[in-house]
Amino acid sequence: MNFEAFKKISYGLYIVSSKKNSKINGQIANTVFQVSADPPLIAVCINKENLTHEFIENSKVFCISVLAKDAPLRIIGQFGFRSGRDYNKFKNIDYTIGKTGAPIVLSFTIAYLDARVIGNMNVGTHTFFVGKVVDSDIIKKGEPMTYAYYHRVKGGKTPVKAPTYIKEDREVNGLDKYVCKICGYIYDPDKGDPDNGIAPDTMFENLPDDWVCPICGATKDQFEKVKQ
Amino acid sequence: MNFEAFKKISYGLYIVSSKKNSKINGQIANTVFQVSADPPLIAVCINKENLTHEFIENSKVFCISVLAKDAPLRIIGQFGFRSGRDYNKFKNIDYTIGKTGAPIVLSFTIAYLDARVIGNMNVGTHTFFVGKVVDSDIIKKGEPMTYAYYHRVKGGKTPVKAPTYIKEDREVNGLDKYVCKICGYIYDPDKGDPDNGIAPDTMFENLPDDWVCPICGATKDQFEKVKQ
Repeated sequence: MNFEAFKKISYGLYIVSSKKNSKINGQIANTVFQVSADPPLIAVCINKENLTHEFIENSKVFCISVLAKDAPLRIIGQFGFRSGRDYNKFKNIDYTIGKTGAPIVLSFTIAYLDARVIGNMNVGTHTFFVGKVVDSDIIKKGEPMTYAYYHRVKGGKTPVKAPTYIKEDREVNGLDKYVCKICGYIYDPDKGDPDNGIAPDTMFENLPDDWVCPICGATKDQFEKVKQ
Repeated sequence: MNFEAFKKISYGLYIVSSKKNSKINGQIANTVFQVSADPPLIAVCINKENLTHEFIENSKVFCISVLAKDAPLRIIGQFGFRSGRDYNKFKNIDYTIGKTGAPIVLSFTIAYLDARVIGNMNVGTHTFFVGKVVDSDIIKKGEPMTYAYYHRVKGGKTPVKAPTYIKEDREVNGLDKYVCKICGYIYDPDKGDPDNGIAPDTMFENLPDDWVCPICGATKDQFEKVKQ
């Protein structure tokens, strides 16, 4: 069994949102697909430990907002590496409430699909939710972010609770890389952090004191040097 | 409801194969995703009318072969636009039998995941099959074919029975395009058919008599001019 084979499955990258009474929440997911054309059904796979799972189970609605290719890492960090239990994920996010009552994210997204759950399936650590799409639209022109692009170009990481998490060896090539102890993001001085104004070839030690992890928002003291 | 939003969901492109007694069959699918990491579960969504569906229901096994980005259209045509009921899809295809007994396609693929069904869910026209991966490996180096690449670069079409089929308006820009009446492939003289040695700017009328549809293998007389 070679787990590298699993990495050859292609995905997009989405914010899956839902509601519970007057509360809203959302999370990053890559495991979204269309199930049938008529009726228009979509499916999403969500970890049972996530707050969004609890919200979908309660309200039986979810909305898929499709991230744009040029979305910055921080939106993925905000929705993907923090819990809605202790953080308002929709802070500073432009959104609207859809037909189902679930929030549609309008920041850095290109389309949405708003759905009511018509069935679900227990698959161990996760639940498949199948929803009938009751509303969908294009938000703006643009290409969708793909999971491959997120990993290869953006240097993004996979949360431990994602279906596609595979324990990876720490990257150990090169000198003076630093890893975020919270989310696993690796600061690579060769690349810098252009999303946040840090040019390539900026050493970790030379980052501004108020620089934070572009994925999870952790401060510099939460980083440790990657061992060679 | 705007069906364009559904096209912003990203997929790869796969051959999903199975067996029934001593017979083997396979089909093209784009709706494949990983469901959980531990245990390693994958899911695929298959149309109930397809022979591969019958085979998976019978044998409770399936194998996902991940198509390479440079796979020619004809392999997609051979597996995606013909039925195994009246055609041996594995003719001229390099394959081997995997641990589960399902065939692993080795032509134009980069990886495989061989799985035993542990559950399924009825979703109208389609069934979700969830399988535990019992064997997986990389076949050769390379990028996976994505569904977006297949449509945009290769000019590929969506079979009517696919979950993601949406009735599209025929392309009507430009002159002298010809559409295959069997599978809907459009021959565009601007692009030619480079996979099969036809250079760009070759008019349909100037194609060799033995040229066939690169997707479904239909002969030239099965094409009609696209109406302006």
